[in-house]
Amino acid sequence: MVKLPGYAGKILYIDISKKKHKVVDVKESFARKYLGGIGFATRILYDLLKEKVDAFDARNPIIISPGLLTGFGVPTFSKVVFASKSPLTGGFSRSVAGGRIGPALKYAGYDTVVIQGRCRKPIYIFIDDDRVEFRKAEDLWGLSTRETEERLKEEIGDKTVATAVIGPAGENLSLISCIDCEERQAGRTGLGAIMGAKKIKAIAVRGSKDLIPYDPDKLLEMLPKIYKECVTHPAYEWDVNWGTAEFIDWMNRERGTFPVKNFQEGFFKDAYAKLKEGEKMPLDPYYWVPKYSVRNRACPSCVKPCGKVFKSRDLIVEGPEYETLYSLGGACGVDDIETVAKAHLLCDLYGLDGISAGVTIGWAMECYEKGLLTKEDTDGIELKFGNGEAMLKAIEAIAYRKGKLGKLLADGVRKAARKLGKGSSRFAIHVKGLELPAYDVRGIKGMALAVAVSTRGACHLTACIYGTELVGKWWKFENIDRLSAENKGYEVKVHEDLMALYDALGLCKFSRHIFFAEKLPEIVNAITGFNVDTAYLMTVGERIYNIQRAFNIKQGFTRKDDTLPYRIMHDPIPEGPSKGSYVKPSELRKMLDEYYMARGWSKEGVPTKVKLVTLDLEDIAEEIGAGI
Amino acid sequence: MVKLPGYAGKILYIDISKKKHKVVDVKESFARKYLGGIGFATRILYDLLKEKVDAFDARNPIIISPGLLTGFGVPTFSKVVFASKSPLTGGFSRSVAGGRIGPALKYAGYDTVVIQGRCRKPIYIFIDDDRVEFRKAEDLWGLSTRETEERLKEEIGDKTVATAVIGPAGENLSLISCIDCEERQAGRTGLGAIMGAKKIKAIAVRGSKDLIPYDPDKLLEMLPKIYKECVTHPAYEWDVNWGTAEFIDWMNRERGTFPVKNFQEGFFKDAYAKLKEGEKMPLDPYYWVPKYSVRNRACPSCVKPCGKVFKSRDLIVEGPEYETLYSLGGACGVDDIETVAKAHLLCDLYGLDGISAGVTIGWAMECYEKGLLTKEDTDGIELKFGNGEAMLKAIEAIAYRKGKLGKLLADGVRKAARKLGKGSSRFAIHVKGLELPAYDVRGIKGMALAVAVSTRGACHLTACIYGTELVGKWWKFENIDRLSAENKGYEVKVHEDLMALYDALGLCKFSRHIFFAEKLPEIVNAITGFNVDTAYLMTVGERIYNIQRAFNIKQGFTRKDDTLPYRIMHDPIPEGPSKGSYVKPSELRKMLDEYYMARGWSKEGVPTKVKLVTLDLEDIAEEIGAGI
Repeated sequence: MVKLPGYAGKILYIDISKKKHKVVDVKESFARKYLGGIGFATRILYDLLKEKVDAFDARNPIIISPGLLTGFGVPTFSKVVFASKSPLTGGFSRSVAGGRIGPALKYAGYDTVVIQGRCRKPIYIFIDDDRVEFRKAEDLWGLSTRETEERLKEEIGDKTVATAVIGPAGENLSLISCIDCEERQAGRTGLGAIMGAKKIKAIAVRGSKDLIPYDPDKLLEMLPKIYKECVTHPAYEWDVNWGTAEFIDWMNRERGTFPVKNFQEGFFKDAYAKLKEGEKMPLDPYYWVPKYSVRNRACPSCVKPCGKVFKSRDLIVEGPEYETLYSLGGACGVDDIETVAKAHLLCDLYGLDGISAGVTIGWAMECYEKGLLTKEDTDGIELKFGNGEAMLKAIEAIAYRKGKLGKLLADGVRKAARKLGKGSSRFAIHVKGLELPAYDVRGIKGMALAVAVSTRGACHLTACIYGTELVGKWWKFENIDRLSAENKGYEVKVHEDLMALYDALGLCKFSRHIFFAEKLPEIVNAITGFNVDTAYLMTVGERIYNIQRAFNIKQGFTRKDDTLPYRIMHDPIPEGPSKGSYVKPSELRKMLDEYYMARGWSKEGVPTKVKLVTLDLEDIAEEIGAGI
Repeated sequence: MVKLPGYAGKILYIDISKKKHKVVDVKESFARKYLGGIGFATRILYDLLKEKVDAFDARNPIIISPGLLTGFGVPTFSKVVFASKSPLTGGFSRSVAGGRIGPALKYAGYDTVVIQGRCRKPIYIFIDDDRVEFRKAEDLWGLSTRETEERLKEEIGDKTVATAVIGPAGENLSLISCIDCEERQAGRTGLGAIMGAKKIKAIAVRGSKDLIPYDPDKLLEMLPKIYKECVTHPAYEWDVNWGTAEFIDWMNRERGTFPVKNFQEGFFKDAYAKLKEGEKMPLDPYYWVPKYSVRNRACPSCVKPCGKVFKSRDLIVEGPEYETLYSLGGACGVDDIETVAKAHLLCDLYGLDGISAGVTIGWAMECYEKGLLTKEDTDGIELKFGNGEAMLKAIEAIAYRKGKLGKLLADGVRKAARKLGKGSSRFAIHVKGLELPAYDVRGIKGMALAVAVSTRGACHLTACIYGTELVGKWWKFENIDRLSAENKGYEVKVHEDLMALYDALGLCKFSRHIFFAEKLPEIVNAITGFNVDTAYLMTVGERIYNIQRAFNIKQGFTRKDDTLPYRIMHDPIPEGPSKGSYVKPSELRKMLDEYYMARGWSKEGVPTKVKLVTLDLEDIAEEIGAGI
């Protein structure tokens, strides 16, 4: 077979039960239809799991799929998708990481790796170009992510191997555990537990092959221009100087949509109340970057490194980020930046999703303050909002399922609230089991719709619509009213399609102010020679997203799952710029109707046969398509 | 330039003011983006008329554009699009004809012909391969369409030339005049008057060149299969045995949505009341075909000829069709088939749109019966429903703008009702000025939405949704409730996109039960080598439709123009299977909201910038795109 330009050319299937692997050529028709990254991962996952299976079933794969452009040195294109059936949501799981493992896989000769099966004893997988080794990992079991990474590199004798590892949380099958790729995480939906259940402690990758673009001259001509666009864009300064949390003060004081104390407040009232004239709020990077940040850290070929390396005494960590400043800060009422950084580090080392961990603990704090949990339930921890030490102890308890508290919280807030009962589900902040990210969607109604319908549960990255809604314009969108529930269906749909495309290409979503959609065909065509246009690429995004929805339908999801936390729909934001705003159930219903119509889905939220056929998904139309 | 496979390769621009022409190569990027037919016509018209101009302005072109596949001998692909700004609606005009002129233009070497300018004295244009002649036509002026065609062939001395001509109605600038292509009409939206205003009596075309497909072997392999599919489909028998009106009895008695007496009734009560046991209703082809039909007539390369040649004494005509059995039959309360055939023939000879003429006369009959028109206004004609002779006289009056009646009716029902006043607009059955086709949309609510939003006004062919709604399923659609106004937006959108694609390819809409969408990529790829899929082709349809909408917006149309006749929204169908049904204004509002959402348009019905950019129409996004 002639190798396709732009592709490593092969998909690697690994069966760890049998310790075997096989390599399948990437067909041009498949490549054109799904591009790569999440496109490949989504279609492969759909085809592998035709029936409803338990997420810990040996057949449930973990799929690792670098974006189409990952590895070509195009600025900010280096992402890798991890996909599986999520043990946390029970639905489609996509978790995207930066870091080095995506490019490494491409250089090893693979566009996608699919791992199925299960081992009885811990192993790690070493993918060394054409060679695939299954190595014992009993001595790594129990180690933190950082230690594991170091030990792997020692054992292989090569510091340049790229690694994806789990920590104790994944080993202990915490449903909010993550996969760590050298301090870039595939954080959400509990994928650490998928590796843990398979007894895969780590994956190490070394690649030494070349990737050949279709039109190298064109690509070389484009790279400096893309570089220049990246470094001259206003977002460059924000990312590089302040990291991902540049806008945290604005979120609090201008928008009032920074969730605090488990969404009881829309801005960090206590933290601001303490400040003297001219002082910065301690979670604000304008406060802590000058004091603690020692350097930046970037993904490969990124020219605008957003990772802020935080150093304080013996603590050194890439973080905190905007999301953990919320989940391990505001959501728990903690405004001490060193504690937040420590908590971020602990989550990284244990291999925990920092968002889910913080939101789950925030919920527990509210339970504690309301008397639904007592010191007996918390193993003696004074689990009040603002108690940073208590938060750190709770993180450890979760990672190791330690004590009553650990057992209660280790599987995220939905399960915890179901176990505890006592009306605590009314303030369990999740959708489809996934805890909400750092946006009080009561005051961002388009985003409320986005988190309600996202195929992986409450997620800021599936649609990446928060900026559009909060600023009121983006790309070609204008005049958007975040406090209105009108006219959101098509807006959310387009964002989702575009972000699916980003995940197919490996493009970082922090670059969405630079690349939009119109700039992508030129890059894709230079790499692949496919001669496609914007409409074609957007359609690929739509195709991918519809398959994810179809997957969820086959796993039992219905319109009822497209919902919002009780609090979002019943308790208005009490104070601040978004005071009084919440999403009425009737508003959600209307937004869902609009969204399904914009998507060409039935009133029940099932893709119509016509939609699927016109996305060239005839087989899926037959399997799940609705009549209208 | 290398000639594109599948294309004649050139666009012919004619300026009749200067009697000059030029030829422009078809670029591959343009061909890929718009395919041909309505795609070429739509984009060219949009680019030529950037501002609001009068339809009779010399700049307003008449564009003649055969479908991409027209001329290749693929069964039922031979249609040709006529496009312009409509003098009747003031908006985008598309009128599609069968017959020989489409293939002839391709064989002459042109994918599209664009005619601008205006003459002072009548001419005809003779396109003879590379040669373009402007010939005097003063002696043809005033002749009927049939005489004109015969005289042209004599003068050129070649019976094989293909012709498109106008009759007296077009010469007299009747806004409901048509273009006649050897008894296949570009019937709707008054395009005869565009030719009349330019003083073009006719266009004659002779082509002798070859069309080269990309993959001749593949095409040859496919043709017998397509042939077989056509002749073994159940619709084959209907079309060939009974013509387009096969279902007229079902429309009356099973659905009650056959409009009678200017939409005062939903089935032909009087005609059925007269029948004895076992008799057929006289407009039903099961009655008249055995008695009057002498042979069938087909478009080139059609294998299922639907044209029924009607002969009675000195009368011979291709027709009547389903539509004229309504407009010149039911709508005027006339059930004498010989009279209807005569009326059909008169419309053809005078070059009148048979639908619009009949509906306009039906309105006048209602006015007469209500006393809003008297014998003085009708030049002595007893203009009552069911008076066939009166109808025939009225047709002549319209074509020649003869007497008070002719002057009142010659520009269609909207203008007539505005002139007359007296509340007669309440039963003027049109949308955007175009008279409704043969479907009582009060009992077909998805179709009501379709006629409300169609870019050319009330039209059954823009979405071609009537079958889907009336049967309740089609293609991949199922469980459609024609009496409900729920869930129609996406359904209409998809039908419109697909039909725009049909008009781009030159595919007859009577074949929509055979080709659907999924079968088209293989044919398009064999002809062009474009390597496209269903999603791509549907996107081209959507692109074309959005440009038409953009065109209308630039001509001043708003959401307010997406409406329905007063009677459709206020007077329920009085009797029959659809008794009581009508489209409430609130239902129309809801359907419009849904439709715009499904289309990615604003609440005002303006395509969003995002929608346009993701259709690769950045320039149009800048010009008319909405923020959301």
